[in-house]
Amino acid sequence: MRKEYLYSPGPTTVPPEALSVMAKPIFHHRTKRHREMFQEVLDGLKYVLATQNDVLVFASSGTGAMEGSVANLLSPGDKVITVSGGKFGERFGEICRAYGAKVDEITVEWGHAVDPAEIEKRLSDEVKAVYVTLCETSTGVHNDIQSIAGIVSKTPAVLVVDAISGLLCDDLLVDEWNIDVAIGGSQKGLMIPPGVSFCSVSEKAWALAESSRMPKYYFDFQKTKKSADKADTPFTPAVTLLRALRETLSMVCGEGRENLLRLYAALAGAVHAGAAALGLQLFSNAPSNAVTAINAPEGIDVTELLSFLRDDLGVTFAGGQAKLKGKIFRICSMGYTNEFDILTAMSALEFGLKKLGYEFELGAGIKAAEEVLQ
Amino acid sequence: MRKEYLYSPGPTTVPPEALSVMAKPIFHHRTKRHREMFQEVLDGLKYVLATQNDVLVFASSGTGAMEGSVANLLSPGDKVITVSGGKFGERFGEICRAYGAKVDEITVEWGHAVDPAEIEKRLSDEVKAVYVTLCETSTGVHNDIQSIAGIVSKTPAVLVVDAISGLLCDDLLVDEWNIDVAIGGSQKGLMIPPGVSFCSVSEKAWALAESSRMPKYYFDFQKTKKSADKADTPFTPAVTLLRALRETLSMVCGEGRENLLRLYAALAGAVHAGAAALGLQLFSNAPSNAVTAINAPEGIDVTELLSFLRDDLGVTFAGGQAKLKGKIFRICSMGYTNEFDILTAMSALEFGLKKLGYEFELGAGIKAAEEVLQ
Repeated sequence: MRKEYLYSPGPTTVPPEALSVMAKPIFHHRTKRHREMFQEVLDGLKYVLATQNDVLVFASSGTGAMEGSVANLLSPGDKVITVSGGKFGERFGEICRAYGAKVDEITVEWGHAVDPAEIEKRLSDEVKAVYVTLCETSTGVHNDIQSIAGIVSKTPAVLVVDAISGLLCDDLLVDEWNIDVAIGGSQKGLMIPPGVSFCSVSEKAWALAESSRMPKYYFDFQKTKKSADKADTPFTPAVTLLRALRETLSMVCGEGRENLLRLYAALAGAVHAGAAALGLQLFSNAPSNAVTAINAPEGIDVTELLSFLRDDLGVTFAGGQAKLKGKIFRICSMGYTNEFDILTAMSALEFGLKKLGYEFELGAGIKAAEEVLQ
Repeated sequence: MRKEYLYSPGPTTVPPEALSVMAKPIFHHRTKRHREMFQEVLDGLKYVLATQNDVLVFASSGTGAMEGSVANLLSPGDKVITVSGGKFGERFGEICRAYGAKVDEITVEWGHAVDPAEIEKRLSDEVKAVYVTLCETSTGVHNDIQSIAGIVSKTPAVLVVDAISGLLCDDLLVDEWNIDVAIGGSQKGLMIPPGVSFCSVSEKAWALAESSRMPKYYFDFQKTKKSADKADTPFTPAVTLLRALRETLSMVCGEGRENLLRLYAALAGAVHAGAAALGLQLFSNAPSNAVTAINAPEGIDVTELLSFLRDDLGVTFAGGQAKLKGKIFRICSMGYTNEFDILTAMSALEFGLKKLGYEFELGAGIKAAEEVLQ
């Protein structure tokens, strides 16, 4: 009778409506039935991204589409700007270097957002692309994509945004803001298991893709678009995951993008308030509404805390990654999460902190959270 | 109450045991629980491939691992041998060319196996890799991998085998035959939905990978091995699909590799006998036990036949791909298929052919199949 609660920034809890369709008999993908389903998925993703641009879908986790945004837009020696302020921003730099691009990497202190003015300063007519992250999952930082897009869109460079963990939690208006490539994944705000990634591609990005000389095949944008125009895929798609995605997209469309943004802002706000009431500090000075990174309190062993929560209470938070291991823990408020889930998370945190001898008034965290959520 | 029967060469029918675990609550992948599950998957795949070599697993369909076998082994300008005798053999050529390798492509008439002597003739000390297909899904051809491996293993070239559709149906002994890279997918003999690919990598292939200068990231073999050694993955894995794969691997290991090979040989033999009894001819002169390609009888519209079977009887066969569209149809005998499924397929075929006015003695096909299967 043990219940499990998942607050990791992907995979997130999968709603029963989506779990159950994955257990239905599979069907063949080169059929009208599949194309109709896939068209609904494509339409739903356009709604989520607020775009009329082409949307391409891949059977891979998010990093696959990130690689696609490098292999399809650039040629060897092309100059690009990336931002190193966390594990996922660094990943763009790693991929660009793996493909032989010339990377101008902006180093940002982990926990801080990138200053759009710094990007503006480094832009020149030679820069082909700027790679940024909406929510830097590793630090819980929300970057100001609207301002960055305002700057980049006035130059010849295309703007590529990793929106994998931020999507639906931190606002992103692909067409209105002029974002050329926006990348998403299935296992975050879209609430299905990992194994599907996607991205939108603007006219400006297609023009750049025309001249790209990087090798590509599985993540070939042009080949994928040609199929997507017929609600098809060049290679075998992840049929059961797409079927689940149609369910969750239908839920998301039903709730409405803007209502969800308000919900997640409130949920993240409740986590922030609860943490503050417990005397805890956020790691990020520009917190995302998708995931909240909290500094480990003095004298508390994060690994011990997270193990107790997971093993004894069935509550999974995420620890820190790379150089933040042992220094922070992360509570996710994306996807299939509501106010009671946040209270459960805060309550578990209180139990864990008490167990480890941290001093605070029991109930202070959940009271503060409830005040935000009422 | 309509029942659906799937005889397409991937996705194949998913057993209820595997369907049901995909509907269970998801869990986080950076946990002991996931690593234990993933280790079982890795061990099962080694059993299936009959290898002690490293096995790498990717969240992608099979083409992703095929691309990995090019990006990780080669450098621009490297000389390779590929075989063009069907859609999937051609794909290796396409990927190698996309990456700037120098491709010596052996052209084989579609429906015929490649002559190992032709590969031997073209081999030289300069050839870095030979890319071949165990079962060419598009034509139902089984290539003699054992003989090819015997030839290639005596040269400096590595042998890469696309075993995606053939695995467990057409024999493949990776270590005994000296196959350097054997590639598989999830949605064929392993009976789970599409979205997972894998490959084994020999010492000889690792040595070649050391000097590879092709760009790679998502399908990076070395990075993937480093994680696999700790039962982990560098990027988010397809958690629910791996969970299903553990179930089907446990079924496969329970049945035994050699028993399954015998089963599928009998099932394919029954399809061959049934087709012959109906006066139909196989397209391939070296038929695979995974999928049987049958020539369209004179005057019968294959598209109409397959639509009738699918829409009216719930029975899905596959048509021909590329230049074989309208000329053949394919019946798959891999994965979760038994003798009664083959009789159902033959019976549906008889109903369809009668409906379209083809002349034969009703029952001749299923009788011939039963004689093989008894």
